[in-house]
Amino acid sequence: MDLNPADEKFAARLLERLPQDVLRPVDARYLEEPRGRYSGQAGVLALPRRVEEVAVLVGAAAEARVPVVPYGGGTGLVGGQVMPSSPAPLVISLERMAAIRSVHPAENVLVAEAGAVLADVQAAAREVNRLFPLSLAAEGSCRIGGNLSTNAGGVNVLRYGNARDLCLGLEAVLPNGEIWHGLTRLRKDNTGYDLRNLLIGAEGTLGIITAAALKLYPVPARIGTAVFVVPSPEAALDLLALTRDRVGEGVSAFELIHRQGLEFLAEVLPTVRQPFAERPEWCVLAELGLPAGLDPMAVLESVFEDAAAKDLVRDGVIAQSQAQRQELWSVREHIPEANRLIGSISSHDISVPITAIPEFIRRGAEAVAAIGPFRINCFGHVGDGNLHFNVFPEKGGSRDRHENRRDAVKRAVHDLVHELGGSVSAEHGIGRMKVEDLERYGDPARLAAMRAIKAALDPAGIMNPGAVLRVSDT
Amino acid sequence: MDLNPADEKFAARLLERLPQDVLRPVDARYLEEPRGRYSGQAGVLALPRRVEEVAVLVGAAAEARVPVVPYGGGTGLVGGQVMPSSPAPLVISLERMAAIRSVHPAENVLVAEAGAVLADVQAAAREVNRLFPLSLAAEGSCRIGGNLSTNAGGVNVLRYGNARDLCLGLEAVLPNGEIWHGLTRLRKDNTGYDLRNLLIGAEGTLGIITAAALKLYPVPARIGTAVFVVPSPEAALDLLALTRDRVGEGVSAFELIHRQGLEFLAEVLPTVRQPFAERPEWCVLAELGLPAGLDPMAVLESVFEDAAAKDLVRDGVIAQSQAQRQELWSVREHIPEANRLIGSISSHDISVPITAIPEFIRRGAEAVAAIGPFRINCFGHVGDGNLHFNVFPEKGGSRDRHENRRDAVKRAVHDLVHELGGSVSAEHGIGRMKVEDLERYGDPARLAAMRAIKAALDPAGIMNPGAVLRVSDT
Repeated sequence: MDLNPADEKFAARLLERLPQDVLRPVDARYLEEPRGRYSGQAGVLALPRRVEEVAVLVGAAAEARVPVVPYGGGTGLVGGQVMPSSPAPLVISLERMAAIRSVHPAENVLVAEAGAVLADVQAAAREVNRLFPLSLAAEGSCRIGGNLSTNAGGVNVLRYGNARDLCLGLEAVLPNGEIWHGLTRLRKDNTGYDLRNLLIGAEGTLGIITAAALKLYPVPARIGTAVFVVPSPEAALDLLALTRDRVGEGVSAFELIHRQGLEFLAEVLPTVRQPFAERPEWCVLAELGLPAGLDPMAVLESVFEDAAAKDLVRDGVIAQSQAQRQELWSVREHIPEANRLIGSISSHDISVPITAIPEFIRRGAEAVAAIGPFRINCFGHVGDGNLHFNVFPEKGGSRDRHENRRDAVKRAVHDLVHELGGSVSAEHGIGRMKVEDLERYGDPARLAAMRAIKAALDPAGIMNPGAVLRVSDT
Repeated sequence: MDLNPADEKFAARLLERLPQDVLRPVDARYLEEPRGRYSGQAGVLALPRRVEEVAVLVGAAAEARVPVVPYGGGTGLVGGQVMPSSPAPLVISLERMAAIRSVHPAENVLVAEAGAVLADVQAAAREVNRLFPLSLAAEGSCRIGGNLSTNAGGVNVLRYGNARDLCLGLEAVLPNGEIWHGLTRLRKDNTGYDLRNLLIGAEGTLGIITAAALKLYPVPARIGTAVFVVPSPEAALDLLALTRDRVGEGVSAFELIHRQGLEFLAEVLPTVRQPFAERPEWCVLAELGLPAGLDPMAVLESVFEDAAAKDLVRDGVIAQSQAQRQELWSVREHIPEANRLIGSISSHDISVPITAIPEFIRRGAEAVAAIGPFRINCFGHVGDGNLHFNVFPEKGGSRDRHENRRDAVKRAVHDLVHELGGSVSAEHGIGRMKVEDLERYGDPARLAAMRAIKAALDPAGIMNPGAVLRVSDT
């Protein structure tokens, strides 16, 4: 079905129903995304302040068959937040709906509007001595509505789950402009289909999340952080198992880092202090959060000793202070920025069954080497089976020179992931970048069900057209 | 749209495509449910052994417009497993698909067929020194497919979540007879709409779950169990908060028990040994599962001392042996059976925001007392905000005499739950018993979305007609 542009006539119609300052001239920043692969068209920009205004906007778009692009922090890496195709859309940014509506420490619940910046949600939890565990590189600018719409992951998934697992209830505007008041604070509610989880991860194609009831957790009494040098990815997995045998769910993060990442840091971010004079091929950043009565530094020391006896670790640094903890984390947290400065040919956010990680790393490197003389920075959330496997030009080489090999690299990596029973999008989502991958690797019965659901909830196809599903499909 | 009966002609058509022994005469037990409120009609009974046979069955039913009732362990309490209305359905029991297909201890994953009995799944996990934490009264006979279809809860939700939270992937037959091969073992997979969570909790109305990849957990190194006498439900909540401040996620279960439950036990199950000579008005059963290095008995003793100083506990028994642990649990686990033997007028599986529990208990008792001289047994998973609030005749009174007041009791309790922002089905589901409640209390925008999804995935309306949604709706 053909859609119409968000033009001046449409804007005039919106202004009949909304306060004047809800609409704004479209600033260029709403039309760009971090990796510069997509750019959007300038239609109409709306900055609503209340869910009722979002409902009016979506209702008007449904009536006029105008495409709608929901906009959070704009930090997504798969082009879900910009629509390059015609007609020009209505962009609805949630940035003025950024309130923490309520905090319920006795229930371990916090209710935030979709535009709340992730770091502000974390801070509001800390203020009542609780933890909101979602944590990722963009937390200073990404917004919780976007985190939920993309089911964001990050470094604490191992212990606390994805964004999906941290949400109890939603308020959302559905594609027909109706408001779903689903902001429950209940831990258990078995009354019908799980609309919450359908909207989470739908990347704005089934509605706009406007607020969420989020789970909080007790702040672990004691935290311990270490970087361990491991002889191989296999050893990293064995070390994780050994650590979990000791402290169960007490392992909050377990991040694999390859030498290439440390070399990139040294090259483009030399002020980031590195833990080892000689950069090891593989190391892991491990963080424990333990209840009172257990000393995480003593546990890490004893884990190190036991692991060393089995040749699972060869060197290590256990943080002795909060400052040193931050220093170790700073290494991990600056790797994405170093990658950006170096400039990848192709970046892969993949997951495989945890036991298949070593095979993936080995065969992935072989497959990429067969295509060209590339450098690989493989790092990430090894305990979740989620690796970022990013491919860069050889030292001194230029990214542009290899643009024509980008598809071959991507295809080789994704074919391998698929063969190993993995996912070509572990935590970033499909957006517009991976629509073809979803078609190639997705289960046909599931894809048909997805298309049927999209057509049922958004028959005119106005919600974020071209994201997740191809426009002609819907 | 009119449906056709699963008659001899339909059975004959099935036998053209399936091994003869897949079909069986309909035994009466497939047409009954535990509380005796619904009874099903005898159509055709199928006991498939492979997902492909399930696909043939559902495909044939879709073609012939014959209703399909999926059948697990038959333990559901809301009539989701029997269809009293015409035409007579095809009942598909998953009992012969009961295999544990694979166990992956290094990944903390187990793949089970839908017909596997929950206790057998738990045992398969134990065999590899892992925990499958779903645990509920019916675990010896309920089946994992039914647990997932109803998003079962139980005593460990506080720590590990509902059935939904314990599932990584599904294999299922969709209403068009197609097989969705979604048995992923991945912890992270952000590739499109969450069909898994849509089928979980859909009570067989959107397809038939045939197998699931389930999450396993480390077995806690040390377990401690206690029963504490508390002066009030408020004190129980404060005691939970105090215990969590001490051991974080280490609290595995926290169950509230009212004197009425203990009196029922004494009346109808006198061999169940009770912890206190004088039955207290309120007590809680608390269980801790802690990592090595922490002594749960010492923690429970110190919690008791601190709580006693604040008048949050007044007496207590800390289990000193595995036998005593089981004895304490036996009290909690026999309460549903005692309820059944006494015979309730109306049973309510409700949840409210945790802080609203004391108000719900107080006002719920008042509302029920205004209707008649009833006894209330209120017990359950207080840490989840989930209470079973069951109403019984006065001592010596008969259940039948009050049958005409059942609706009034139910309405009073559910109205209060709704007013407090709660749910009228916390863990049992909607089934056929609560369809009207869902219509009365459900969010209209969400209900419309549910109906659209049902119509999109099951346009002929063959899957478990009348469960969750009214037939005329779909």
